[in-house]
Amino acid sequence: MKIIIIGATGTIGKHIAKALEKDHEVIKVGSKSGDLQINLTDPASIKAMYEKVGAFDAVVCAAGEGHFGPLEKMTDADFRVSVNSKFMGQVNLVLIGQHHINPGGSFTLTSGTLSEDPVVLGASVSAVNAGIDGFVRGAAIELKNDVRINSVAPGVVEESPGYFPFFPGHIPVSMHKVTQAYVKSILGAHTGKSFKVAE
Amino acid sequence: MKIIIIGATGTIGKHIAKALEKDHEVIKVGSKSGDLQINLTDPASIKAMYEKVGAFDAVVCAAGEGHFGPLEKMTDADFRVSVNSKFMGQVNLVLIGQHHINPGGSFTLTSGTLSEDPVVLGASVSAVNAGIDGFVRGAAIELKNDVRINSVAPGVVEESPGYFPFFPGHIPVSMHKVTQAYVKSILGAHTGKSFKVAE
Repeated sequence: MKIIIIGATGTIGKHIAKALEKDHEVIKVGSKSGDLQINLTDPASIKAMYEKVGAFDAVVCAAGEGHFGPLEKMTDADFRVSVNSKFMGQVNLVLIGQHHINPGGSFTLTSGTLSEDPVVLGASVSAVNAGIDGFVRGAAIELKNDVRINSVAPGVVEESPGYFPFFPGHIPVSMHKVTQAYVKSILGAHTGKSFKVAE
Repeated sequence: MKIIIIGATGTIGKHIAKALEKDHEVIKVGSKSGDLQINLTDPASIKAMYEKVGAFDAVVCAAGEGHFGPLEKMTDADFRVSVNSKFMGQVNLVLIGQHHINPGGSFTLTSGTLSEDPVVLGASVSAVNAGIDGFVRGAAIELKNDVRINSVAPGVVEESPGYFPFFPGHIPVSMHKVTQAYVKSILGAHTGKSFKVAE
């Protein structure tokens, strides 16, 4: 299977790549590193990436910027950091990718448990995480040629200790569990699901 | 109580206004009609509206455009119709409104059951509806001075027969039930909730 991983050198992406590269052809994509570069906020950059890769079987996105900051000071511009990157970046990976993906292929996006279990400073991320899960449910019933779509919704992960102070009472989730959720989406048969990985 | 209703002359908004105007001061806001006009996609227009109204106790939004169309042909620009209006329009009503609302006041936004019960052509609306509900959960834990926030998530409403062909198998929901959900949000004490109004 030919699998594109966006954010392949990131905290989560590197584990997904490691889990898949023994048995599959993995194309690593990053904002600065990897086999190919992409600017998730730019549909033209996404289209160019797909054209370079050619036909493929799965795309996984473990990238996308979210804005963290106090609601009291949050502006439209702050909020749109999350909207343009984590939300519309991932949506555009699907809107554009549906014209390049092989029949029976799959899209796996990343949302997160903040959608239902919010933290202070995270309102825009709660919103876009929930939005991604809603998009997955809506898109799943329209994708053609047996193409599937799911999201993985991790809690704060054990390898991101810098985030722990902002997630009081959250128990960091095992990177193994998170990685396996992506593997389930890619190699399994589900569609329209959000695989929540909470402790 | 001084209550701002955005979309006050719309299908749902006119019922909310009718239910509240006997006992409360209702400011009707529309894109073209009402006491005041607003362009939901423009933060400057939202700010100007709040400045004209002055201090208030509740804002209800029963407005916001969503794009309906086939996923197969959907573009970033199509999707952003929903993002800029129903999603960011309502988010900005809160981001800006939090600096104008009275202590103990409330925000009531509109999402919809498409977030979990999608229809063909509705992927962008499923996404932004879910996003609004996620935002409500995230914002609720940060709003100051006992200010509350909820959303109402109606199914297709009985007074919108033009939508029925696009909602096969959906049982249109009673306008009375929908209206009461808004009343519950405004006059009740909940925060961070999405009141689903399905058949």
